[in-house]
Amino acid sequence: MTDFSLDSRLEADTIPIGDLHLSRVLLMNDAQFPWVILVPRRAAMREIIDLAPKDRAALYREIESVSEALQRLFSPTKLNVAALGNMVAQLHVHVIARFEADAAWPKPVWSMGARVPYTPEAAKACAEALSVALGRL
Amino acid sequence: MTDFSLDSRLEADTIPIGDLHLSRVLLMNDAQFPWVILVPRRAAMREIIDLAPKDRAALYREIESVSEALQRLFSPTKLNVAALGNMVAQLHVHVIARFEADAAWPKPVWSMGARVPYTPEAAKACAEALSVALGRL
Repeated sequence: MTDFSLDSRLEADTIPIGDLHLSRVLLMNDAQFPWVILVPRRAAMREIIDLAPKDRAALYREIESVSEALQRLFSPTKLNVAALGNMVAQLHVHVIARFEADAAWPKPVWSMGARVPYTPEAAKACAEALSVALGRL
Repeated sequence: MTDFSLDSRLEADTIPIGDLHLSRVLLMNDAQFPWVILVPRRAAMREIIDLAPKDRAALYREIESVSEALQRLFSPTKLNVAALGNMVAQLHVHVIARFEADAAWPKPVWSMGARVPYTPEAAKACAEALSVALGRL
């Protein structure tokens, strides 16, 4: 197995928050939605079912942790959890806090054309709040 | 806790395949995509993290079973797995086989406007194939 390296598009589109036991935790650089991406640090994974059973279990726990952190921090109307990967094949899971007043509601966030990047200060504050909520990554 | 009853919109949009241990298994009535929906048979659930830990574990196993069945039957380019629920709040998980030649690729299937209903024969054949692949529901 080769070493894990983060897909360049995921790297370009996100702000790093830290690492959980299995996954790299990224904040999507789009101020319209509190939007976390989990990337299991395993090489050559495309599907959740490509992961070894132990890693799957870790991923599910980490999705739950991020879901709970987003609920505590943002009290969203709904969470959206999704592993798509049609654009970026490297296995990654979106966990997004959605609100009835958000820019895409009730459509999925991927229906939006343009992203709205965070200011550097807002990106830092949001990533820090999520890091603390996840046990200080 | 009140009894489980399937959301009327999910019922209208799908063809029943059967029940797994936790979830009702539905075939989305859209011949453009092999598209399964899992609905945990628990009342008043909106988020995966609303489920008791034991039910969460069952849901994850059932998502894996459907993923493997879709891979065996259709050899897709990519699986899409998603719990969104912005339109229908009842907890449900989409598991969709995607292909580079499909009508929405590389966008998510929810970006498509119109669905293309199965013929009755095709719906029966697809639901039956999935039922068998899942151990004859």
